[in-house]
This record gives sequence, structure tokens and C-alpha cells, in this order.
Amino acid sequence: MADSLIKAQTLKGFRDYLPDAAMAREQLMETARRVYRSYGFSPIDTPALEYAEVLLGKGGEESDKQLFRFIDQGDRDVAMRFDLTVPFARFAAQHFAELTLPFKRYHIAPVWRGENTQRGRYREFVQCDFDTIGTGANASDIETLMVIHDLMEAIGFTGFTIRVNHRQLLNGLLERLGALEQSVGVLRALDKLGKIGADAVIAEMVEKVGVAREAAGKVLEFASLTGRAEDVLGRVSEAVKGSERGELGAVRLRELFDVCRRSGLPGERIELDVAIARGLDYYTGTIYETFLTDDSKIGSVCSGGRYDNLAGLFTKQALPGVGASLGLDRLLAAMENMGLVKTASTPAQVLVMCFEESRLADYMKLARTLRAAGIATEVYPQAKAIKKQFQYADKKGFRLAVIAGADEFAAGTWQVKDLGKQEQVTVGGAEVVEKVRGMLGT
Amino acid sequence: MADSLIKAQTLKGFRDYLPDAAMAREQLMETARRVYRSYGFSPIDTPALEYAEVLLGKGGEESDKQLFRFIDQGDRDVAMRFDLTVPFARFAAQHFAELTLPFKRYHIAPVWRGENTQRGRYREFVQCDFDTIGTGANASDIETLMVIHDLMEAIGFTGFTIRVNHRQLLNGLLERLGALEQSVGVLRALDKLGKIGADAVIAEMVEKVGVAREAAGKVLEFASLTGRAEDVLGRVSEAVKGSERGELGAVRLRELFDVCRRSGLPGERIELDVAIARGLDYYTGTIYETFLTDDSKIGSVCSGGRYDNLAGLFTKQALPGVGASLGLDRLLAAMENMGLVKTASTPAQVLVMCFEESRLADYMKLARTLRAAGIATEVYPQAKAIKKQFQYADKKGFRLAVIAGADEFAAGTWQVKDLGKQEQVTVGGAEVVEKVRGMLGT
Repeated sequence: MADSLIKAQTLKGFRDYLPDAAMAREQLMETARRVYRSYGFSPIDTPALEYAEVLLGKGGEESDKQLFRFIDQGDRDVAMRFDLTVPFARFAAQHFAELTLPFKRYHIAPVWRGENTQRGRYREFVQCDFDTIGTGANASDIETLMVIHDLMEAIGFTGFTIRVNHRQLLNGLLERLGALEQSVGVLRALDKLGKIGADAVIAEMVEKVGVAREAAGKVLEFASLTGRAEDVLGRVSEAVKGSERGELGAVRLRELFDVCRRSGLPGERIELDVAIARGLDYYTGTIYETFLTDDSKIGSVCSGGRYDNLAGLFTKQALPGVGASLGLDRLLAAMENMGLVKTASTPAQVLVMCFEESRLADYMKLARTLRAAGIATEVYPQAKAIKKQFQYADKKGFRLAVIAGADEFAAGTWQVKDLGKQEQVTVGGAEVVEKVRGMLGT
Repeated sequence: MADSLIKAQTLKGFRDYLPDAAMAREQLMETARRVYRSYGFSPIDTPALEYAEVLLGKGGEESDKQLFRFIDQGDRDVAMRFDLTVPFARFAAQHFAELTLPFKRYHIAPVWRGENTQRGRYREFVQCDFDTIGTGANASDIETLMVIHDLMEAIGFTGFTIRVNHRQLLNGLLERLGALEQSVGVLRALDKLGKIGADAVIAEMVEKVGVAREAAGKVLEFASLTGRAEDVLGRVSEAVKGSERGELGAVRLRELFDVCRRSGLPGERIELDVAIARGLDYYTGTIYETFLTDDSKIGSVCSGGRYDNLAGLFTKQALPGVGASLGLDRLLAAMENMGLVKTASTPAQVLVMCFEESRLADYMKLARTLRAAGIATEVYPQAKAIKKQFQYADKKGFRLAVIAGADEFAAGTWQVKDLGKQEQVTVGGAEVVEKVRGMLGT
């Protein structure tokens, strides 16, 4: 075989997760599951492969080009999902009769996009979505924000800002300015504010979108109303007064900020930002974006919003909803940069070393006792040189080593060594669990 | 749009997981992760897509035909993984320099096979594999058995048997009988014992495989040596005496049974079965199969064994190892049959009902307090008729409802209702967490 080895390589844009990265990622997913569940969101799962017609045209031309699409063994035109929203729409239409509304689901799963890898993007990444469908109630919009907040906090972030907007605020202003029909062009121009500056945005609105210069100036002025709700919501409400849609947006946001404050969410973490504009054609109400204070470069790590109809392409049943998606891999990259990811490559804390292979049953019995007490424990499988076993323990990041040779077995004791502090104690067999627990600080 | 709806359907052989099934599956995966981690196995992940040449020819012709294989946007010949072992072999070869041996990994992920769905098989299913590579130590074989045992117990099974064999036992006997070269044919014939009976198996060995009739009879006699180690291991050892490979197998199994007994594993759950023969070309040492006492029809739910070389097709580095795989979806089906799967479709236990929308902040604040105490709690988002809210609670399987209207808010109290017992109590705001905890029995 050796003369015809197959090259061991991953596809371009795909990656393996080694234990340290896989453990950090698994922990993030566990945290997300725990927070979603604590609010009554249930998991669902859908297939990686769908009929191509289910996925095509849902994310625009760019997204169609990026589809991993092929003809299967049964001559079906199939493709791998590129997000979790389109499969959820198909799911909701297909199982409508089985769902109890409002239906709250989360879905944590990989998606595939044949993206240009030069931008540092991967072609396979995990999304963590949660949505509430079948209700237009503002309570669900508020809850969505709370879930994002609790999720960020549970992951371990303290410095973050959730920016909230309502799509009908700007529409309300444009309606008052007689420019409602230009709203998509206005939003596209506004979206470039950070990159090209106010003058260029005004020029684009006037020249390309066809908005009057004075109106464009008012839009820019409006877009600067960003900050804590108590500081800017009054002026925002004033600006949309007289437009029914604008006032509705302002009323819903006012309730959102009010309920969050009264429910005890820290006010400094939630800002009104009338300039954020996600998913131009999809979102119709509240919008959320989440930014890390310590790493603004990575962009929003958790985003979403309210939409009028999830599954209009699949069913005549109207399914309004609201939800958001945690960009798991993007967040993981940020956490690695910020030193928030532990580097141990083992989930076990204790290594029982192997001095005498004839004593394997004793080592294994002790390990079972520790595991039964909730302490993850590995047994080194061979009586290799003790130096090698310590090297192994160091490389993998064990915290404690438990050691026993002839002397200890004769005395009925164990040596427990703290590998960080390099301190070693002798304990009797009956006290070893308590001692290990104490040294681990659990 | 309504006049050109896309049909909402899943592909043949693929299925959606609705909340009740998805929750049961997620719980199984969480249990597997917990048990694997408690032994120091670390997670890894590999891409769903691989170069086709990595996967082709690894599972035989049948497996190649079942591959979801296509040409990607970059003209690469790619395929979706059909198991987790071949990607692990590729992974181990590719990252050899980064691995600390022995390397213990688990991998829980979906795989895809274009199987014949008439046999009730799905084309997408989750595998839960764990392996220890880089050591030939028998301690790892023993540990593998312990992991299987603890996993079955943690899932909630009490009645199960792990059948253990060593591939070199039968080889040892065949060596003594001068029929070692016929071992693959002998195993194939033996494998049919349950279906075609002893006479037909002997006939096949004699006529097709070319074994002497007397030797074939001895093989059949040997294959009946199945049961508790203390009852049959002596006779098995006797039968292979004089064959080095056979004696090695017997010694290793003897140590396995001895260490398990002395480590406190219940002896009735572990049997020696010299007739089991998994993965004819792959496994070379210890073999495991796990059967449920209450559902023998579904076959082995957790199987594996020791192999000489994981990644020989990818690297000249010899990587012996041992591991097993939990058939998650097969097990889930058995658990559904046995009534071991809960039918609630919400992970939350408490529903805070909504009487007055102006009190949303109070409902949400209470829910946050309950969540902070570890009690998953949902808030009904609208002040719909209370009957509707109770129907919702029943359908989803909430255990408690918390209710407050004008009277309760005036008195500073909450009504807590046990939805199963249909009992309702009034509690003061300060005691509600304690009361809910008590009623949930946590």
C-alpha cells in the first residue's frame, strides 16, 4: 500500500477541528442550547440535502452560484443547504398541521456555501438560529432581544452592545418626506455611510436614487439618532409623527426598551440605531445587531429581526415571525483573539498514571470512582517511563495526576500531584475523591 | 407568489426532526458526549465533504455506489462522507505531527449513504464514534468496553449484554486445524449460523470454503462456547492452546474480564461470544457488540473493535487503535418502541401566562427570575383567551402554569397551577421560585 498513498488533505475552504477548537465550539453550542431551551425554544433538525428548487433563488444570484448542487443517484436535482432559514420555511410549510403556534424553534447545524475563500471565509460553517413564528406580538420581539442578551452573557462576554432598530422608522420618515418608494435605494446608500461618508451618501441618494437634496439631508440627520433609548427615542418619535407606520415602529420600540429596563437588563447594553438595515427585502419590523466592545472589527456576531411571512414561497399560510442567528464560527474567532478560549486539549481533569500494569484494575477502579463523583478521569494505558507520562499530561493539559506504585499499594495510599503548582500530597484510599475535588476547587 | 408555490417536501430517504424527536436525539448526543468526556476523549470535527479519492474504495463496492458524489464549482471530484472512520483516518494522517499519542477522540456527526430506502434505512443519520489510537495496550480495549457499558447505563438501559470476542481466537483454532488460510470464508459461513443452521454452515465450510469435515465440526463446536467468561473462557483457552495468536487472544480477554470484574462492572452484562465477527478485513483483535435484552430484533446498537492500522492508505505511520460506534438513530427507534422517550415538545417546564399585556414587564421579569434559578420558563406572548393558553400548555407538555391578573397584581401574589394534577395554589411574590421548585420536585 505504501507505494500508492492517497494524499491526506481537506478540500479548499474546509477545515478539520482539532480537540482544542472542537471543545471551544462544542461549549459554545452547549451554551446556546441551554439559553434557547431556558426560554422554551425546542430543537428541530432538517436534512443537509434538499431539492434544489427549495433552495434556489432564496438568497439571490450570489447565493445560487455558491450552492453545492448536483444530480443524485435517483436523478434528482439536489443541493446542500446554504442557511437554516430556507429549510425552516420549507419545514414550517410541510409540517404546518403538526405545529402548535406560536412555534419556537432553534436549529444548530452546519451550512455550506462555495464562497470565495480569499476573503478568509470557510465553505462549511455552523449556524445557531432561533425563531418564534405564528405571532406578531411585540412580546416575541422583546424576548428575542433578551435571548441575545442572555446568550452573550452566558458565553462570557461583558462588553457588548445590541443595536436595535425598527424598519418602519425610516420608512415613516421617508413617507413624511414623500420618498417612501425610494426606501430600498435610500437604505442601500445609508449602508455605505461608514465607508464613503455623509456627502457621498447624500450625493448617491440625490443622483442615483432620486431623492430631493433637502430630504436626503433630513435622512442623514435622522440616521445620526443613535444611542440610549432615553436620549434619542423622543426625537425619533418626533421625526416620524404623522406616519402611521413610523409611529407603530416607535411605539413598539418604546415598549421594548421599557420592558427590558423594567425586567432588569443593563441599559448600557441596548442601543437604538436607526441606521442599521439588515436583509432589505426580508425583515419588516424590529432588527437586531450585536457588537463586541473589545473587537468591533468582526462586525455583528448575533443578528436578526422580524419578518412578515416566513414561508410564502411554500404555503398560503401566513407565518409572521421574529428570530436571530448566532455567527458561531465568527464568534469563536473573536474569542480566540481575546484569549477567551481555553487551550487544554482534553476534557478530563485527572490523569491516573500507570506504574504497574498488573495493577490496571486498581487504576481503573479508582478512575471509575472519580467519574462517578463527576470528575472526568483518564487512565494512562501502559506502564511507560513516568517522564513520558508527565509529558503526555502536560501536552494535553490535565490539572492533576494520581500516582501509585508498589509503596503506595502496600500502604493503601495514592499520590495526588497538582501539575500546575507542582505540589504533591499523599492521601489514603478513602479520602482520594474528596482530596481531588478540593484540589480541583469544585 | 401564491399561484406558483414550491412544493414543501424532503428528499426520499431524508427526514425532518420535529421537537419531540429532536429533543430525544439531542439528549442522547449529550449523554454520549458526557460519557466520552468523562474518560478523557476529546471531540474533533471533519468536513461533510471530502475529495472523492479519500472516500472511494474504503467501504467496498456497495459503499462506493451509495456515495453522494459530484463535481464542485472548482472542478474537484468530491463526495459526502459515508462514515466517520475514513475521515478520521485521513485526519490522523494529515495532523499526525499535531497529535499527542495515545490520541482519544470522539466524533458525533451526520453521515450520508444513498441506501435502498425500502429496507427502512435513512440516507442521512448520525454516528457517535469514539476511538483510542496510537497504542496497542489492552488497557484501551478494556476501557472501550467500559465506555460502552457506562454509555448504555447513562442512556437509561438496565437490560443489555455486551458480547466480546477476539479475532485471534478462531484464527488460533483454525491454525491448529491447519485451516488458517480459510479464515475469511469460515467467518462468512459462521455469520449465517442464526439464519441457516449448523448443518448448512458445515456444508458451506466443506464445499465452498474447502475445510475438512471434521475441522468444520470442531469450528461449530467452538462457536457454541458463548456465555459468561468464568463458564467458557477455560474451554476456549484449551481449544487454542499451542497457537501463539490464539493464546494471545485468550490472555487479553482473560485480563479484560478480570479487570472489569475487579473494577465493579456487573458480570451478567458482559459475555464472551466467539462467534461474533465484525468487519472481516478491518478488525484484528477484540470485538464488541451490544444487544438490548428487551429488543433483540434491532441488532447491535454499539459495536466496534481493535484494528492494526487506522490510516495505512494515507500514511506510512502505523496507527493501531480500538474504538466503537453508537448507532444513534437505531437506538432512538428502539427507545421509542420501549417508551423511553418523553413526548413533551418543549424543553421548558413552566409557562407564564399572559392576562394583561400592559403587565408584560412583570411576566418577563418573573420568567427571568425563574430562569436565573435554573428553571426553563416561557412567557405566552399575547393576552389571548385563557382557555387557548391552557390548550397551548397542554399540547406542548408544560408542567406548571404561572398566572396573574389584576387581583393577583393588587395583592402581590401569583397563582401556580400544576397542569398534571390540576391543582392551583396562591403564593406571594417572594416565595414563587421556591414554590415552583418544590412543585417541579427539583
